[in-house]
Amino acid sequence: MPVNLTPPVAAQLLPVAGVFLGATEAHIRYENRKDLLVMQLCEGARVAGVFTQNRFCAAPVVVAREHLAQRDGIRALVVNTGNANAGTGEQGIQDARTTCRALAGLLDCKETQILPFSTGVIMEPLPVERIAAGLPGCMAKMGADNWFDAAHAIMTTDIVAKAVSRQVTVNDVTLTVTGIAKGSGMIHPNMATMLGYIATDAAVSQPLLQRMVTEAANRSFNCITVDGDTSTNDALMLIASGQAGLPEITDACSAEFAVLQAAVSEVAIWLAQAIVRDGEGATKFITVRVEGGRDEAECKQIGYAIARSPLVKTAFFASDPNLGRILAAIGYAGIDDLDVGAIKLYLDEVLVAEHGGRAASYREEDGQRVMRQNEITICVALDRGASRATLWTCDFSYDYVKINASYRS
Amino acid sequence: MPVNLTPPVAAQLLPVAGVFLGATEAHIRYENRKDLLVMQLCEGARVAGVFTQNRFCAAPVVVAREHLAQRDGIRALVVNTGNANAGTGEQGIQDARTTCRALAGLLDCKETQILPFSTGVIMEPLPVERIAAGLPGCMAKMGADNWFDAAHAIMTTDIVAKAVSRQVTVNDVTLTVTGIAKGSGMIHPNMATMLGYIATDAAVSQPLLQRMVTEAANRSFNCITVDGDTSTNDALMLIASGQAGLPEITDACSAEFAVLQAAVSEVAIWLAQAIVRDGEGATKFITVRVEGGRDEAECKQIGYAIARSPLVKTAFFASDPNLGRILAAIGYAGIDDLDVGAIKLYLDEVLVAEHGGRAASYREEDGQRVMRQNEITICVALDRGASRATLWTCDFSYDYVKINASYRS
Repeated sequence: MPVNLTPPVAAQLLPVAGVFLGATEAHIRYENRKDLLVMQLCEGARVAGVFTQNRFCAAPVVVAREHLAQRDGIRALVVNTGNANAGTGEQGIQDARTTCRALAGLLDCKETQILPFSTGVIMEPLPVERIAAGLPGCMAKMGADNWFDAAHAIMTTDIVAKAVSRQVTVNDVTLTVTGIAKGSGMIHPNMATMLGYIATDAAVSQPLLQRMVTEAANRSFNCITVDGDTSTNDALMLIASGQAGLPEITDACSAEFAVLQAAVSEVAIWLAQAIVRDGEGATKFITVRVEGGRDEAECKQIGYAIARSPLVKTAFFASDPNLGRILAAIGYAGIDDLDVGAIKLYLDEVLVAEHGGRAASYREEDGQRVMRQNEITICVALDRGASRATLWTCDFSYDYVKINASYRS
Repeated sequence: MPVNLTPPVAAQLLPVAGVFLGATEAHIRYENRKDLLVMQLCEGARVAGVFTQNRFCAAPVVVAREHLAQRDGIRALVVNTGNANAGTGEQGIQDARTTCRALAGLLDCKETQILPFSTGVIMEPLPVERIAAGLPGCMAKMGADNWFDAAHAIMTTDIVAKAVSRQVTVNDVTLTVTGIAKGSGMIHPNMATMLGYIATDAAVSQPLLQRMVTEAANRSFNCITVDGDTSTNDALMLIASGQAGLPEITDACSAEFAVLQAAVSEVAIWLAQAIVRDGEGATKFITVRVEGGRDEAECKQIGYAIARSPLVKTAFFASDPNLGRILAAIGYAGIDDLDVGAIKLYLDEVLVAEHGGRAASYREEDGQRVMRQNEITICVALDRGASRATLWTCDFSYDYVKINASYRS
């Protein structure tokens, strides 16, 4: 079960003026679940995003990038689950275009004003007729109050839907930021690594919106890992509808930008952590903090060596303070001139290792006590610089294997 | 259970003249199992080796490297299981030295003529008194015919002992090569990645012996992965006793060198594959062949992205031809200019994907048939060069989690 992650409450998800959502059951792979979402945007809304860096990126990623680059003004996003339309070659590209064309027909806009997204099984043809047949059902449900349904419609192996809202006040105007995301395997950075959609009613210039989503992704979705795999499909999109009545934000040094960036990043971090809390088979939420590095890159490199290690992750599942596995992961992280004698390793506040070995003050029962918790912070102090990085991951349980061994069945 | 790996038969393990082995129960961690091995070498024997590249390398690795560099003539190797003497700081170094000193006392040689090795739990003090107390028991058993016992004495979570012999004839002289190894988690390259000991009765100069063991490691232990973790302790040692009656091999271009290298590499590959076949929880043995690359490095990089992916490995466990997960792994391997449209993916002889998607000729039942086998070859043809690499891995099962969640209990 997800670690300290409660399902969203519909009433707590705030509508974003100018953003409308409609979801339906299109029977793409499973029955009795919403699997198709349309997000319709008011005229003048801007969209920016970051996409997977996987070379085998899925057809919808190719098409979405292309349409974003056209700058025709995006009028809608369409998301299906059940089929990722990845590893589908030229036919997949055509199918993504057909999906866009079908929605453009309903919205009376251009095909290039639609962004397509897919998630689910790879290398199977997209059932594009079912998607086209489902689109009118989405349109019939269209409303600003549908974030709760939208969060459910994009789930695959997620147990709990992920959605959150924040509000900030800028020059006496209230700005709303609402986001949804889905995980939950194949979560690793090198980009967006899942599907996430964050919308605000602020007005933001296109370059600043791109900067804002990149910064938010780097602080959130690019700091999590479940199994180290990077998906072919994943994307984080940031929508600015401009309906709040505040002038467009065009200055990266303005207070408005800073306040909105903070709210967007906070929503992104909440969603990214929610994905880890609902990681496939997760029973523990683990924060890996690496500090005292020469630069952020080496802190992340060491953090990911720990966060990706199946040996570390199974030890956490077992609540076994087999902390040598963490030292081993630090050792093979690939930092050639690392002085292991200078490193301090903490489990929450318990000093576990220093001087290349177990700390003299360490008692097994202290480590055991922390390991039994379902939220644990590993801190590695490198003592060679002033940089730091924080990552989030989960443990590795029987259920991870079970879920991934049976996902297609 | 191990995949197509039968236990060694004592009578098929050939003694190597000048190499004597004795194992005993030293009660290091568990009762009723041999956990201490001494390999005694005749005077004039040479030893070369490759060690883990983990920055947190264990105390015995530090001491063994130091003793090898002394060039005093190695007279014995001592291996304990149950405790890795890793992450043990300065005390660990002292404990490794104490072990060497104790054995040197029994053999009437210098402490620097002993090489120590440890495997087992990390970050716990080495019970050096028990080891010292066990050494006379090893000496009492000392014999050239004890490879079978030796292979058992170095096991940790291995289910089956790993040992093999080969003979080759050079200038009418028969040369013997016998090797033992232990796995079975934390198997990943960046070096030796487990404990392996290969001995021959040939005479080989020190530089050529080093070259021979490095080449053998690169073709064997550096081509396997079980869970992607690199151990703190692992080492592959090659012993040349020089007792076969053949002149010393000093020319890397000689037929003698080539024939012996081939035999040593064959033994190393057999042992490395045996480690994968007995990988923790393994139910399938998977060969990953990447060909048509620009260089061997990029072939290995793509091969390891596949071989390490938990999503790929759980799909193999489930016999599920969810082959898109392999494409996804190729895509995130980190080859920036990879043309995914040019790649062909085969499962045994079945063409699965080409032109960036599923092959037109592919039928699910063909993929399903191959996936049900317990030995499967994935072949990735990159079509951008003439280089290739072959790696071996296993699937990822419930039992991997079970074994690693309970290893210390």
